[in-house]
Amino acid sequence: MKLERTWMLLPDRTVGFGDLAIEGGAIAGINLRPAQGAGGEAAPTPGAGGTAARRLVLPGLVNCHCHAPMTLLRGVGGGLPLQRWLEEAIFPVEAKMTDADVAAGMTWGAMEMLAGGTTCVADMYEHTRAGAEALAATGMRGNVCRVGLAFPDGSPRGRLDECIAFAKTPPGGRLVADVCVHSEYLTDEKFCRALAAANRELGRPLHVHVSETKKEHDACVARRGKTPIAYLADTGLLDRGGYAAHCVWCTDDDFRIMAERGVSLVHNPTSNMKLGSGFARVVRAMELGVNVALGTDGPASNDNLDMFEEMHLASLVHKGLANDPTVLSPWDVIEMATKNGARALGRGDVGEIAVGKRADLCVVDLDRLHLAPCFDLPNLVVHSMHASDVVETIVGGEVLYDRGAFPRTDAAAAREALLAAAQNLAHGSLPA
Amino acid sequence: MKLERTWMLLPDRTVGFGDLAIEGGAIAGINLRPAQGAGGEAAPTPGAGGTAARRLVLPGLVNCHCHAPMTLLRGVGGGLPLQRWLEEAIFPVEAKMTDADVAAGMTWGAMEMLAGGTTCVADMYEHTRAGAEALAATGMRGNVCRVGLAFPDGSPRGRLDECIAFAKTPPGGRLVADVCVHSEYLTDEKFCRALAAANRELGRPLHVHVSETKKEHDACVARRGKTPIAYLADTGLLDRGGYAAHCVWCTDDDFRIMAERGVSLVHNPTSNMKLGSGFARVVRAMELGVNVALGTDGPASNDNLDMFEEMHLASLVHKGLANDPTVLSPWDVIEMATKNGARALGRGDVGEIAVGKRADLCVVDLDRLHLAPCFDLPNLVVHSMHASDVVETIVGGEVLYDRGAFPRTDAAAAREALLAAAQNLAHGSLPA
Repeated sequence: MKLERTWMLLPDRTVGFGDLAIEGGAIAGINLRPAQGAGGEAAPTPGAGGTAARRLVLPGLVNCHCHAPMTLLRGVGGGLPLQRWLEEAIFPVEAKMTDADVAAGMTWGAMEMLAGGTTCVADMYEHTRAGAEALAATGMRGNVCRVGLAFPDGSPRGRLDECIAFAKTPPGGRLVADVCVHSEYLTDEKFCRALAAANRELGRPLHVHVSETKKEHDACVARRGKTPIAYLADTGLLDRGGYAAHCVWCTDDDFRIMAERGVSLVHNPTSNMKLGSGFARVVRAMELGVNVALGTDGPASNDNLDMFEEMHLASLVHKGLANDPTVLSPWDVIEMATKNGARALGRGDVGEIAVGKRADLCVVDLDRLHLAPCFDLPNLVVHSMHASDVVETIVGGEVLYDRGAFPRTDAAAAREALLAAAQNLAHGSLPA
Repeated sequence: MKLERTWMLLPDRTVGFGDLAIEGGAIAGINLRPAQGAGGEAAPTPGAGGTAARRLVLPGLVNCHCHAPMTLLRGVGGGLPLQRWLEEAIFPVEAKMTDADVAAGMTWGAMEMLAGGTTCVADMYEHTRAGAEALAATGMRGNVCRVGLAFPDGSPRGRLDECIAFAKTPPGGRLVADVCVHSEYLTDEKFCRALAAANRELGRPLHVHVSETKKEHDACVARRGKTPIAYLADTGLLDRGGYAAHCVWCTDDDFRIMAERGVSLVHNPTSNMKLGSGFARVVRAMELGVNVALGTDGPASNDNLDMFEEMHLASLVHKGLANDPTVLSPWDVIEMATKNGARALGRGDVGEIAVGKRADLCVVDLDRLHLAPCFDLPNLVVHSMHASDVVETIVGGEVLYDRGAFPRTDAAAAREALLAAAQNLAHGSLPA
């Protein structure tokens, strides 16, 4: 397989033009054409003319914090603060969900992500095995996990043995299994220490929610005399690295712990704003050496799975907060959504367009009104581009999305399954 | 012309389902079907099945602050702070622009807006007559103006007599002409008072930039002992109302003056963040009675003309800043982009789907991955929808955009003209 005469974003922060050869699911060769070739052949102006000049290849986007089956609950409980949103709108409906519901929601979420150029996702949700099987079937790459929960009411969800068993038996397809606790506040110390002990052998990174709201962060400090990050570090749960979603209220000391333990910060700007949680201090975290990646969070608090929007927001919001337009360059933000995401998930084999990396690629059509003229492609990616500009998404060399079609997935059946599940769940419990 | 069996956003903040009749360019009838008809006929679930249920009609979006010909400069000077961006990247290129360049940029900008459901724009730019003629030819509705400028160097741009003459001779099509000064800092008091005097007869609203950066706001206070809004009010320029872009650093007293004089605040969240200017306090402005509308600003500081993005950002950013997800409901934000925009521009005949209003409409396809399931349409509009979901844009009953086609405009010729102009301007002066 070959992508010929295309623009591409390269790891050294340059934009190249040339051909990309794919073999055995990996990038086998990159043949860059010089701006002016020996035969006088020039690289065309991006977007300017001829199909050759109208295509840009990015590394596939990596969504490092998602609850994709929540497509079933898209927009539910809008306008409620986080705790009430969880307790009044989300948890009661989730309690009714079946394996089949979660599979339907996951398939739809994966399709939405693939259509928007996302090739890899770190997903955390209930009915984990059913969800993971649905995700594997779509062909997406992903890190999944059984959510560790230890509710005060003794609810059997997320028992320790299940978490460990799930991490021990990767679910197939292009998926790996990580360890997970939902958060400091929905687990107890005994649970965390036991999972950390088990993970000494498993050696998987931790997926966890951290300091999403001020209330949650402050309650932890009041309860334990330390921040959620410091507490998680104490339990041993950060010993194998991991990726912490949100980190809105993390302190500088938290960032130092994260940098030292190889724990990445997953920034979810849309969700943190929509739920009124605040703004993670990602610029400071980067200064202190933390790897910063991006995530959409679930579609019930976003309300889509669009990594271009997350790039856009990450770029804009921190410029606004700092009153400084030089904060976070387009390349900084593109790397958050690609290479840094791959690093967060312990996947050194994706996230860059380089020979030997897996061929996880996102192909964008530059022939769009809002992308002309093309003076500065990285800037266009972050500030003008939409998920809908993606025309082809490739994972491990396999085309999983092609101009509205999903070669691996029956889109009509997926739609029927989603709507049927949503309708069932909504009955009597969702707002009209 | 009739839009049958469609969902629609109604002025009483409800979502209706039924038929919309258009006659003589206006909405002639709205025939709502009850949720459960006498014959047992139910309104279908939005997006759930059948083409009938898969379409939503919004009032056409109103972009209240734009420099559409800056499509020519999309992404130019990215990362520079506002004053350097203007002086080093933008002004030198603008000085070279011809009437034909501006016409090409305006046509392209109008096409981009129409493709994203924007039916009306308030545009402010140089080579005003050529730009206005290009805009009129696309069929868009708009408020245009000759920019009042009085540079210290005595540059002849924006002479008073031209401003007045332009406001006196509306440029045809669906356009009206307003009065304009660029800003407090690029005009002098004599100019402002003279224009205000002339406007006692003209009676047009004022289009102006106000308190975009802290530096600009503070410099005005230091220079004149009053804020830009207080100063403009003193000169008489606010006597006929108007629409003030940005207002990032406005005080409560400024908001009180604006409310009293009928001056609308045009919020440009993307541009204000991208240039590091800050966040307009729109929630406070609304509390003090100011009409708040939305704008994209020019595509060189955005970098597209997407009013769905502005709605999305307006909703998210103020929730994040207030740490309160109940701030700005989806309906609040939708009204900013429609009815409030129409009010800002003195166009009481558009901005709502109601009998007797002009038929300026934006038709969205609900059959998209990121829009299913549809539990809450207003929420989906603000938090999930993209400009690319628009399939049809109607202005004054005339279809100006239809699934990628522009019945009024030769898109291929427009593209050639844009790229040729951009290439010329770029020669030797734009970054590679």
